Amino acid sequence: MEKLYDLLKENYGEMIEIRRFLHENPELSFEEVNTPKYIAEYHRNLGHEVTEGVGRRGVVAKLHGAKPGKTVALRADFDALAIQELNDIPYKSKVDGVMHACGHDGHTATLLVLAKVLNKLQDELEGTIVFIHQHAEELAPGGAIAMIEDGCLDGVDVIFGTHLWAPEPLGNLMIKDGPLMAAADGIYITVKGKGGHGSDPSNTKDSIVIAAQFITNIQQLVARRVDPIKPAVVSIGHIEALNPFNVIADSVYMKGTVRTFDEDTRDLLEKEIEEVLKASCYLTKADYEYNFVRGYPAVVNHTKETEFIMDLATQVPGVDELRVCEPVMGGEDFAYYLNHVPGTFFFTGAKDPNWEEVYPHHHPRFNIDERSMLIAANTLGAATLKYLLENKNN
Amino acid sequence: MEKLYDLLKENYGEMIEIRRFLHENPELSFEEVNTPKYIAEYHRNLGHEVTEGVGRRGVVAKLHGAKPGKTVALRADFDALAIQELNDIPYKSKVDGVMHACGHDGHTATLLVLAKVLNKLQDELEGTIVFIHQHAEELAPGGAIAMIEDGCLDGVDVIFGTHLWAPEPLGNLMIKDGPLMAAADGIYITVKGKGGHGSDPSNTKDSIVIAAQFITNIQQLVARRVDPIKPAVVSIGHIEALNPFNVIADSVYMKGTVRTFDEDTRDLLEKEIEEVLKASCYLTKADYEYNFVRGYPAVVNHTKETEFIMDLATQVPGVDELRVCEPVMGGEDFAYYLNHVPGTFFFTGAKDPNWEEVYPHHHPRFNIDERSMLIAANTLGAATLKYLLENKNN
Amino acid sequence: MEKLYDLLKENYGEMIEIRRFLHENPELSFEEVNTPKYIAEYHRNLGHEVTEGVGRRGVVAKLHGAKPGKTVALRADFDALAIQELNDIPYKSKVDGVMHACGHDGHTATLLVLAKVLNKLQDELEGTIVFIHQHAEELAPGGAIAMIEDGCLDGVDVIFGTHLWAPEPLGNLMIKDGPLMAAADGIYITVKGKGGHGSDPSNTKDSIVIAAQFITNIQQLVARRVDPIKPAVVSIGHIEALNPFNVIADSVYMKGTVRTFDEDTRDLLEKEIEEVLKASCYLTKADYEYNFVRGYPAVVNHTKETEFIMDLATQVPGVDELRVCEPVMGGEDFAYYLNHVPGTFFFTGAKDPNWEEVYPHHHPRFNIDERSMLIAANTLGAATLKYLLENKNN
Amino acid sequence: MEKLYDLLKENYGEMIEIRRFLHENPELSFEEVNTPKYIAEYHRNLGHEVTEGVGRRGVVAKLHGAKPGKTVALRADFDALAIQELNDIPYKSKVDGVMHACGHDGHTATLLVLAKVLNKLQDELEGTIVFIHQHAEELAPGGAIAMIEDGCLDGVDVIFGTHLWAPEPLGNLMIKDGPLMAAADGIYITVKGKGGHGSDPSNTKDSIVIAAQFITNIQQLVARRVDPIKPAVVSIGHIEALNPFNVIADSVYMKGTVRTFDEDTRDLLEKEIEEVLKASCYLTKADYEYNFVRGYPAVVNHTKETEFIMDLATQVPGVDELRVCEPVMGGEDFAYYLNHVPGTFFFTGAKDPNWEEVYPHHHPRFNIDERSMLIAANTLGAATLKYLLENKNN
Repeated sequence: MEKLYDLLKENYGEMIEIRRFLHENPELSFEEVNTPKYIAEYHRNLGHEVTEGVGRRGVVAKLHGAKPGKTVALRADFDALAIQELNDIPYKSKVDGVMHACGHDGHTATLLVLAKVLNKLQDELEGTIVFIHQHAEELAPGGAIAMIEDGCLDGVDVIFGTHLWAPEPLGNLMIKDGPLMAAADGIYITVKGKGGHGSDPSNTKDSIVIAAQFITNIQQLVARRVDPIKPAVVSIGHIEALNPFNVIADSVYMKGTVRTFDEDTRDLLEKEIEEVLKASCYLTKADYEYNFVRGYPAVVNHTKETEFIMDLATQVPGVDELRVCEPVMGGEDFAYYLNHVPGTFFFTGAKDPNWEEVYPHHHPRFNIDERSMLIAANTLGAATLKYLLENKNN
Repeated sequence: MEKLYDLLKENYGEMIEIRRFLHENPELSFEEVNTPKYIAEYHRNLGHEVTEGVGRRGVVAKLHGAKPGKTVALRADFDALAIQELNDIPYKSKVDGVMHACGHDGHTATLLVLAKVLNKLQDELEGTIVFIHQHAEELAPGGAIAMIEDGCLDGVDVIFGTHLWAPEPLGNLMIKDGPLMAAADGIYITVKGKGGHGSDPSNTKDSIVIAAQFITNIQQLVARRVDPIKPAVVSIGHIEALNPFNVIADSVYMKGTVRTFDEDTRDLLEKEIEEVLKASCYLTKADYEYNFVRGYPAVVNHTKETEFIMDLATQVPGVDELRVCEPVMGGEDFAYYLNHVPGTFFFTGAKDPNWEEVYPHHHPRFNIDERSMLIAANTLGAATLKYLLENKNN
Repeated sequence: MEKLYDLLKENYGEMIEIRRFLHENPELSFEEVNTPKYIAEYHRNLGHEVTEGVGRRGVVAKLHGAKPGKTVALRADFDALAIQELNDIPYKSKVDGVMHACGHDGHTATLLVLAKVLNKLQDELEGTIVFIHQHAEELAPGGAIAMIEDGCLDGVDVIFGTHLWAPEPLGNLMIKDGPLMAAADGIYITVKGKGGHGSDPSNTKDSIVIAAQFITNIQQLVARRVDPIKPAVVSIGHIEALNPFNVIADSVYMKGTVRTFDEDTRDLLEKEIEEVLKASCYLTKADYEYNFVRGYPAVVNHTKETEFIMDLATQVPGVDELRVCEPVMGGEDFAYYLNHVPGTFFFTGAKDPNWEEVYPHHHPRFNIDERSMLIAANTLGAATLKYLLENKNN
Repeated sequence: MEKLYDLLKENYGEMIEIRRFLHENPELSFEEVNTPKYIAEYHRNLGHEVTEGVGRRGVVAKLHGAKPGKTVALRADFDALAIQELNDIPYKSKVDGVMHACGHDGHTATLLVLAKVLNKLQDELEGTIVFIHQHAEELAPGGAIAMIEDGCLDGVDVIFGTHLWAPEPLGNLMIKDGPLMAAADGIYITVKGKGGHGSDPSNTKDSIVIAAQFITNIQQLVARRVDPIKPAVVSIGHIEALNPFNVIADSVYMKGTVRTFDEDTRDLLEKEIEEVLKASCYLTKADYEYNFVRGYPAVVNHTKETEFIMDLATQVPGVDELRVCEPVMGGEDFAYYLNHVPGTFFFTGAKDPNWEEVYPHHHPRFNIDERSMLIAANTLGAATLKYLLENKNN
């Protein structure tokens, strides 16, 4: 194990280089072309068995140990977001309006360098390691489903994954048994009023006023319609009615997300968001379109594998504290892997202790303390080696 | 006068052709290139004295009568709007996202063919007719100011103008003495919150929720802060926060318009819109930018010239009814001409009696009954001839 | 006329005494008992022909001149409001929760002392003066209808009335021909949700949240549904859900008023207020009751009588300025008298020039500059004498 | 134990009688006079040592067993609510506007008859039973603090209590270790605008519109400002502005409640409710008063005593299912007892299986399935006997 940690430490500089290269060259979900090429090339250079185009854009690489044994999968996602970076950093995104604002650049750099290091330990390995590089985590239906359908989990005995987590101090790992992350659904709404001249409201059906009333009144859903004990979030993130200043909007388009942990609340919100919309359109008899698109289910960690990580984590270099956390409202299509094979998912603290302000994930100023990558690599590497070792005679 | 009417009738087919040609080839305010060229060419072919580039993009043409006399100006605007046409007509706009949705194509066709006809009556004319083809009526600061500064009103004794008016039945003229159209100001607002992940509202300052609260609460201004006797409109026509569905918006941009008839209410709204914005940002301590851009002042018709039109209008072919109307909330930079020379502005009804639904000005399905052009030409032509005749010995 | 003015000036002290006595002893609309007794007694002491219980609670007194002639009616109302006075004055209301907060105490004092003075001029009078002391102006259906049905206008040729007006400076009279005051309707609403424990919103239909949404969203009606040229007001003045702090309200009761000047807007608001209510109840499927009670129609002054007042007013002592005003949103059942006989209604400025803040009518700190009573008496007295004089031979 | 159950069953009729008598004669919190007299008399008739006026209005009765041993306290509250009963039942409340709408009548009946039955088992008892009849549970600061200060827990080794629970089916017990019920705070708000006439909004500061905006916007607090994982409720239950229909409200008074389980969220809401209020008053520069009154802390069950109840409950006659529940948002001043001595609190299902609709606690149609009283008595009685037995030699 010490060898693993030493090698990772030696190669930490490359991890940073890779991460910054990816940060400068982000690609949107389901539009990834160069990133998977880059990943495949890296693994090919290590001599791994590489499959490209898994689930259309994913990359799967396999490292076979010297002896047979169990198969451990490690997963990292590699897509970016349609956000204009506002960071003033030397490795700022070169692509206008696209940014690695969730740390997937770091996930990929972590997994690539970990693969390189594990490759050096090949002679001592008993079993197989599958590196799952997944595209399109940010956009439902996500890349996981297609990659699984394409066989990326075939023969896999256990899967581990982590998310670099900017709100959590560097040195902390966060994990919990059972539900860890929320079901993440999408809502897509068009208010269809009747446009006109900005000076003539009484002859129009003002879509922007309707949308404003809708957004104001959906706050009631979480505040008063959902059982207060049940966590839920409804957010509208996109609103669009692009008209001259003196026009009343014919229509408004909105997109948003709904987060829940149980199916009853999910069903209730699907229904009641539409009821609020209907009520908002009622006065002017405006029309609407409403789509509630079910996204990833909740990420539910497996007990045995979660305890396995909890046991080893505190001995991993860089891990100061293992924190059993509350569930997190974010969604992750890692959920699908856990519906197929045993495994667990955890958060690796990535908040630089010197930051005065932490910008949340998906913020145009989001960043990570890059040292979190080394801690994540140590933990995933240790879990892999320990799992193969402990299960070699099974 | 009968000769005028007959000639206009004969040339009505060309009026339609020109209008439809312009409809197919709309140009945005302050971006007009081909339209003024087309207009100048038309007048040059008639042998008029033509000045291009008046106020940068306007065209002024002069027709000198056989004998000297007074100078009458007639004005038509020729810019289009940033609206995607939704009409299914043979002469639909060929320019994506740009449309003659306010009838300025008709104004220009009316004035050009009227010029052609008046030209044929040149021998009988005592005085001068100035055809003012104005760019950029739709976008403050408008084209009128610059054209006036460039001298388009020099020597002008009186000015007449009309707007084809889709909500008013064909055959009606609408006019009133004094305030006819509102002051039209613009508001430009950026709410600057703090973005983040859609699942994590409590660590963000949700700009879209702030904007919704702002839009909902500005309704109070007209309903409760402005004296109910004083007409006022506040409309937000543009809202923009273009993010992925699972993001909380860092900022929202809005544009809108404010209409008033008196300066006190204008000042009150300028101030109180910002107060509502401030209150909406207060809870999350979000920031904002607010610009209130004063646009055209109110159109105030002159008494003598208004009565002049009222007297002659009912004898004009096609005019069934002269209606003394309420003031209209729309703005017009014709206001500036009336601040310099005597004159009046009126509305020519353009609602086809067969329409089941009337789409208001600036609507993507806006259209006019083209016969209104002939009525407008008859009225403006008659006013010109009568004015020159009645004032020839002064 | 000078004699009239001199006598009124001499008796101004009594006017103040009477007004303050009435101010201390206010009675609610349709509950007036002592006030009409007091009024009847006063007139009886003058020797006038007095009828009590006119329209149940009104008082009509007649002063017959020495010779026959025309009949002039003067009207003053005498009811008070259910408002707890907050003024700290020696003659503060002695009745808890009831207050002369609209100046009717002043109207009555003015008319009584004017009656006393006119009585002294009896020998010179040719014609009859009818003093109409009306109950219940503040509460629809008002006292006027019943008093008219009971004959108070029988034989009357003309009627004059005034309202002491605190927002207008002392010395000004406000009047206009045609529509002067708005139609004043009442709305009475019960939201019927489902109550419960304050900690358990998701099992209730929270009536208070519904009511808040309703009140917030009715602002849209005046701001966006009514033609901006048409004055309109919708106000909710009463809201009531009296529960312990930890209960969710089963129902909420609201009362309010709607003001308009034309029947189309009145009809539109009657309908659309209910639509907003329906939309507000929709999410939780709560129920409601809605009553729109038509109150007084608009006060429409007669042209000839209005010009009569305008002509004489500027010569009346105390009148500095006659102001042709905009229509006023308040309602008045003086409207009914004007539907039966010619006449006019005007406002007598009652703002003390030394006040730093003016409390509007119906405010718990409302008051008047008492000198306005003398000006009102001068004007009404002069109008009466002049009318009788000018019309004596008709 | 069988003897206990048999005796309770025999006396079930009396339990119903007592409960219905109390139901007909409810008394408000801190105004209880006859109820404590009735309770004291009942215990005195059983020969118990009775102290009245404990904490001013509470009653403590003691039953000493034949031999010494541990001391078990059982607590029942006996106050009613300011709610007008809408049930149509023979034993409907005889007091206008006051109602046992939370089941405290049942709690008292249960404890009194249980006391009678335990009294019959006195010979077999080793130890002491303290019956704590508490006043004023519904109204902070509650009766518990004062009764504890007055010594009601002196010498007590353990305390048990239950709440009859209408939303839970008869036959179920609900319990959980740790936080069971929320901290329950009160908010008391006065919006101080500027009143006026209903037709004149622009010269007023409309308190009702401000209150509506406040209520609409506080929905944001739970929906967007509180961490979605943390349960929280903010409810306004009382709103009051009692004016004539044509007045604009000078002020509005509101009362409400805030429920939380952790101090951070409690502090956040205390602060941010005021921020929403401030923002709502900002436009018209209205004033306000805000009081956040901290009520009962969270009810936190003790582990050992909770497991003790969980172990025995399933053998108690009438208990079909023991359900480990989620925390409940309601508050209870039982919290204070648990801050002083070990113990636990649980819910006894009281929903009649034949009901089509369940009216929540504090609803004017609230009722219980009276059989729940027998189940509660069985459970509390069994717990008492078992505890004394198991701990007799300690």
